[in-house]
Amino acid sequence: MNFADRLLAAVKAKNSCVVVGLDPRWSALPPQLQAMATKHNDFSPQAAALAFFQFGRAIIDAVADIAVAIKPQFAFYEQYGPWGMHALVQTIEYAREQGLLVIADAKRGDIGSTATAYAQAYLGGLAGEDEPSWSLQADALTVNAYLGSDGIKPFIEASAATGGGIFALVKTSNPSAGELQDQQVDGEPVYALMARMVHTWGKDLVGQQGYSSIGAVVGATYPEDAALLRRLMPQAIFLVPGYGAQGGSAEDVLPAFNPDGLGAVVNSSRGIIFAYQKDAQYGAERYADAARAAAIAMRDDINQALAQRR
Amino acid sequence: MNFADRLLAAVKAKNSCVVVGLDPRWSALPPQLQAMATKHNDFSPQAAALAFFQFGRAIIDAVADIAVAIKPQFAFYEQYGPWGMHALVQTIEYAREQGLLVIADAKRGDIGSTATAYAQAYLGGLAGEDEPSWSLQADALTVNAYLGSDGIKPFIEASAATGGGIFALVKTSNPSAGELQDQQVDGEPVYALMARMVHTWGKDLVGQQGYSSIGAVVGATYPEDAALLRRLMPQAIFLVPGYGAQGGSAEDVLPAFNPDGLGAVVNSSRGIIFAYQKDAQYGAERYADAARAAAIAMRDDINQALAQRR
Repeated sequence: MNFADRLLAAVKAKNSCVVVGLDPRWSALPPQLQAMATKHNDFSPQAAALAFFQFGRAIIDAVADIAVAIKPQFAFYEQYGPWGMHALVQTIEYAREQGLLVIADAKRGDIGSTATAYAQAYLGGLAGEDEPSWSLQADALTVNAYLGSDGIKPFIEASAATGGGIFALVKTSNPSAGELQDQQVDGEPVYALMARMVHTWGKDLVGQQGYSSIGAVVGATYPEDAALLRRLMPQAIFLVPGYGAQGGSAEDVLPAFNPDGLGAVVNSSRGIIFAYQKDAQYGAERYADAARAAAIAMRDDINQALAQRR
Repeated sequence: MNFADRLLAAVKAKNSCVVVGLDPRWSALPPQLQAMATKHNDFSPQAAALAFFQFGRAIIDAVADIAVAIKPQFAFYEQYGPWGMHALVQTIEYAREQGLLVIADAKRGDIGSTATAYAQAYLGGLAGEDEPSWSLQADALTVNAYLGSDGIKPFIEASAATGGGIFALVKTSNPSAGELQDQQVDGEPVYALMARMVHTWGKDLVGQQGYSSIGAVVGATYPEDAALLRRLMPQAIFLVPGYGAQGGSAEDVLPAFNPDGLGAVVNSSRGIIFAYQKDAQYGAERYADAARAAAIAMRDDINQALAQRR
C-alpha cells in the first residue's frame, strides 16, 4: 500500500500525529545503560552501539501504541561506524515488529546514479535480480533536493516500487535555515520554489486518501512559512520537526495541518526520549516511562489544539 | 597540518590534481571479482562488500602515485548496510596506508546538533574524553549546506580540531543542478550566494599556501559558472566532479583553477575505475592496469591544458 495511505491509517487508528525521533547521545543516556555497556571498562564503539540499541528498544516499547512512527537520526548511529549502523538496522527491525512505521532521517541527496544507490539502500526496490542486494526497507526517507529533480527521481521510483515515501527538506527548523531558504527568487522564497517542485514530484504517488507519498520537511519553528507551504503543497504530508526541545508549540504546528486535521505528522526527539532528565517523578531508572508520558502529553497537546481550531 | 596545505603538498609532489572516485557498482565489477565473492552461491551483502573492498584495494594500488586523493562515494557502500560500511572503513584505512588523502563523499548536512555527530563520525575531534568514540578520520568530507551556517559550523570546528576539511556543494555537475542552484537571488544565482557563504566560512582556516580547508564542489560540466565562482571564492579549493564519464573535458576544468595553476582538484570515478570496459587492450583481467593508464592520461590531459593556458 502507498506510504501516505499507511501513514494516515496509523494517524487515524492511533488518533495521533506523533513521531518519536531516535537521536541517541551517549552523554544523555541513562547511567545504568552507560554502565551496562561499559561494565568491562569497554569504551568501544561496539559498547556504545549496544547501548543505543537497548535504549531504542525500550523507547519503542514505551511509545509503540502512542506514536505513528519512529524517526531514527542516522548521524548518531553513524558516529559509531559499522557497529552503529548495525544497531540502527536492529532498532529499525524491532520498531517494525512493534507495528511502527519507520522514517529514516538520513537527509541523503546526490546526482542521479548515486541517488539510485541511496534509494536502494534505504527504500529498496531498485536492485537487479542477478546481484547481491540489501535494503533497510524503511517506510520513508528524508532527502535533500539541493541538486534538483534528477537526484530525486530515484527516490520516487523506489517509493513507487516499494510503497515507500520521502520527505524532502523544504523549510528546516534550525536558526539559520533562512540564510538560503528564505532568499527571494522571483518574488517568493527559495523554500516556496522547493515546495512547488515537491508538489510536482508527488503527483503520481497520491494515495486513496488524497495525500502523496512525496512529503516535505517543514519546521515547527517557522509557523508563518508553514501556512504558505500548506497552500503550495496541498497533497503533501508534512514532517514537522522542531516541536518541544527546539521551541515549537502545539499552536506552532497547526498551520502544517489541512482543514481536515490531516496532512502533518510532528516529530519530537529529545523532548521525548530524554524526558526523564526534565521530569523528577521518573528519574533515570524509569526513562522509558518518562518517554511514554511525554509522548502521550504531546499527542494530547496537539490533538487539543487541532480540536480547538475546528 | 591544515588540510589545504596537505592537499596542495600532494598536488605539487605528484604534479597531479587527479582525485579517483571510488564508486563501486556490482554490475560493473570485473567478472572474476564477482565470481570470487559469490563462489559458494553467496549473493549476500557480505559477499558484495568483500568484492568492493578487493576492488578498491586494487584500484588504490594502481593509482597511489598518480592520484592525490581517493573519493569514496558512500552511497555505493551504504547499499550493503553495515557490511558495506565495514568495507568502506577498510578501504579508507588501506588508502591512507598507501599515502593517499581521503575525501569522504557523503554529502552530509543537518541542523547543528546533528551535524556535530556527522562531523565527529567522519572527521573526528569533537568527542568527549569520557565517552566511547570512533571516527573515520577522513581528510575531508563533502557537505550540503541547504540548512545554512549553523549546520556547517560543526564541520568547520572538526576541521580545525583535526586538520581536516570540507567541500560544500556549490554548483553540482548533474543535468538538473540549475533547477535550484541557478535561480536568481538579488541579481545573482543561488550558487553564487552559496559561494559567498563558503568564502566567509573558510576565512579562519587558510593555510600557509593561501588556501582554505573549507572548499567547494564545482562541477566541470558548467565551466562558465566555475569562472564566476573562482572569483567569488579565491581561497577555496574546488573539488571538480564531472570530468570524463559525465562529459567534462580538460578545457572545461580550467576555469576552476587560479592563475597560479592551483586551487582545484578534479575527480573522475567511472572513467578511471571502470576504464577496462572501454579499453580493449586491457580487458577485465587487467582492470587495475586500465585504471592506472586512465589516471595517467587524465593527469597529463589536465596538466597539458594548464600549461597551454599559461
